[in-house]
Amino acid sequence: MHAVITLTTDFGHEDAYVGVMKGVIISVNPHARIIDICHHIEPQNVGQAAFVLGTAYPYFPTNAIHVAVVDPGVGTARRAIILKTEQGLFVGPDNGVLSYVLRRTSPQSHSGEASLVPVPSGWEVYAITNPRYWRHPVSASFHGRDIFAPVAAHLSLGVPCGSFGEAIEAIHAIALPAPRRTAGQVAGRILHIDHFGNVITNIREEDLPEGRWRIEVQGRRIESLSGSYEAIEEIGAMTGSSGYLEIAARGKSAAGVLGLRIGDEVIVAAYRTA
Amino acid sequence: MHAVITLTTDFGHEDAYVGVMKGVIISVNPHARIIDICHHIEPQNVGQAAFVLGTAYPYFPTNAIHVAVVDPGVGTARRAIILKTEQGLFVGPDNGVLSYVLRRTSPQSHSGEASLVPVPSGWEVYAITNPRYWRHPVSASFHGRDIFAPVAAHLSLGVPCGSFGEAIEAIHAIALPAPRRTAGQVAGRILHIDHFGNVITNIREEDLPEGRWRIEVQGRRIESLSGSYEAIEEIGAMTGSSGYLEIAARGKSAAGVLGLRIGDEVIVAAYRTA
Amino acid sequence: MHAVITLTTDFGHEDAYVGVMKGVIISVNPHARIIDICHHIEPQNVGQAAFVLGTAYPYFPTNAIHVAVVDPGVGTARRAIILKTEQGLFVGPDNGVLSYVLRRTSPQSHSGEASLVPVPSGWEVYAITNPRYWRHPVSASFHGRDIFAPVAAHLSLGVPCGSFGEAIEAIHAIALPAPRRTAGQVAGRILHIDHFGNVITNIREEDLPEGRWRIEVQGRRIESLSGSYEAIEEIGAMTGSSGYLEIAARGKSAAGVLGLRIGDEVIVAAYRTA
Repeated sequence: MHAVITLTTDFGHEDAYVGVMKGVIISVNPHARIIDICHHIEPQNVGQAAFVLGTAYPYFPTNAIHVAVVDPGVGTARRAIILKTEQGLFVGPDNGVLSYVLRRTSPQSHSGEASLVPVPSGWEVYAITNPRYWRHPVSASFHGRDIFAPVAAHLSLGVPCGSFGEAIEAIHAIALPAPRRTAGQVAGRILHIDHFGNVITNIREEDLPEGRWRIEVQGRRIESLSGSYEAIEEIGAMTGSSGYLEIAARGKSAAGVLGLRIGDEVIVAAYRTA
Repeated sequence: MHAVITLTTDFGHEDAYVGVMKGVIISVNPHARIIDICHHIEPQNVGQAAFVLGTAYPYFPTNAIHVAVVDPGVGTARRAIILKTEQGLFVGPDNGVLSYVLRRTSPQSHSGEASLVPVPSGWEVYAITNPRYWRHPVSASFHGRDIFAPVAAHLSLGVPCGSFGEAIEAIHAIALPAPRRTAGQVAGRILHIDHFGNVITNIREEDLPEGRWRIEVQGRRIESLSGSYEAIEEIGAMTGSSGYLEIAARGKSAAGVLGLRIGDEVIVAAYRTA
Repeated sequence: MHAVITLTTDFGHEDAYVGVMKGVIISVNPHARIIDICHHIEPQNVGQAAFVLGTAYPYFPTNAIHVAVVDPGVGTARRAIILKTEQGLFVGPDNGVLSYVLRRTSPQSHSGEASLVPVPSGWEVYAITNPRYWRHPVSASFHGRDIFAPVAAHLSLGVPCGSFGEAIEAIHAIALPAPRRTAGQVAGRILHIDHFGNVITNIREEDLPEGRWRIEVQGRRIESLSGSYEAIEEIGAMTGSSGYLEIAARGKSAAGVLGLRIGDEVIVAAYRTA
């Protein structure tokens, strides 16, 4: 089968870790097609991995198998899971790395702990417990190689989810920050800063106050959305490619110019109509 | 069809942007073969992207489809184009990113603006205007995902170039710097500094003055070409793998040792034969 | 043939060098499957490349072709070789880059020079001398493109090893550091520091002294092996995924916290049983 397997990890590119996972996958299924989503997640930053995977999986075929290995609890009793949705299969530790697939929002901060939530109706979750599909001996520190890669490869061969372990009822999710709306304003947060220094907030265009508004960030005001990066004079805002309000600087890193970091607050204030 | 699609971008590896383009491509053509040329072009450095793509495409099969997305004008009226040559198809914004494919040289500096030049005879250029082959809704900031990736994927399925839009007569190219030759010397420029710190100039071996000569750079003199990196004692020069004169340092970054940057001048002076 | 070709180089990702090698490979064998092991070896660090390849190749199919191009002597008389083993074919310069495939240990330091060693019985080595399978003209600085890539691609098409040149009897290997055992202690060395800052030594669990012991490193003591990263309170040790003793810090880079570098000594001392 020519199934697609994607990889999202914090393994970086200095070691052979990613290559080793690919070697294990093709040793099981020589025809699996492997596509890298990202290997530069900050070490052990489960929330960032969840965001990056969340922006990517909707653009893949719905029979793709998405493997996410950002796994500070590797070797402990934390569960390994398979999540089956109509948009694809997801394989990884049960630590919140699939939170943006679940899209459970809350007004809390991004850095919140993962908590147990019920599996959405129509979806299925399986605990990976059957050692038959693992690589042995299983190391204490590299389940990407010994469990997740071979499980994904066997899934790509058509082994049914139920063969890997029992269905479970709840999985861990990090509460994603939703913008807080009050009478005169919307208070959002910075979800991600990309390679260009564009600042991606959790505010969508439909969240903006009616009428005239201004974004207030680090003493600067932005009063309208630009239609393109080139239309921005110095600092501006536009609807980014994932549908979120993005703050950008012309030819520069907006995060650098403004001194912004993931988790910082961004306020959109309505002008009083006198 | 098992066509090859290459990618050259300034997207880096911290985000899912590259992975998302691949997801879009294989959603259209599951058998497309995708090869990364480079994703570490400096943000929005069209000239560098043009150089890097120019050093790479000649080594690919002539039916390859080369996608280049370094696109500071994304979302504006700048055109998106397909360039059809006997060496492959090229897809990208019409901003000069294909300048080294066109190889239009001038004595001007590398940092010049792109200007309109006629399409070389025998080649064809098409404006990408038919939304039928795009991903919808088209974002204002990520045409790599919404236009260039799906267009390349449809090209790889055999859709003819003319289906994507009308043939046009001229495209934008950056005038590439040619070395200036005067009686006693050749004045070149630094085109690129590679991962090893090797300094790649725009001077070819046939540009060197006849008889004895010396390269003068940052107060150092180099008086002959070395046959290998290991033959260089401290600082030396050799004909690099792309055919250009290259300045290298033994076991170190020549750019670092000499304090050189892209665009700097390199003089090769003939010795007077007394 | 759908053979697998892996790549391990010090080429980085800023240039098109890796992409060009892939273009050359698929121009020879359009069906070759190419997997990156690592391209971030420190420039010209043959020992590090040998280690990284050594941790990766055992996880690939035994008919894989592993290409390693960390090649400070490119363009000199150093030999290019094919090593044929029951675990795969290896292609690269004869400079010690295959030392961990040979696994010849000595008590010497990691930074030792490569010396000639006989080919292990049952294995075969061939000098790459037949220009028929090269790309011409052959540059002095990029044999990855002009020799190693096309040779690997032809190997993947089933061309027998003997077609590329004559069998030879000895190849260069770097003596890998073995831990030194004395009555009361084991003295090991740091082989590698990974992306997470985990410090990988050359000590295996079976090398540890009997009874109680303590690892002494930069004034810290570690007195037992942890079962997972999460079980480590501040600084700890565990058996890493390659079977070597690894020093790790909770949520941090152990190398950074302790100021450790590749080649540094790590002592494991037995407690006297009074």
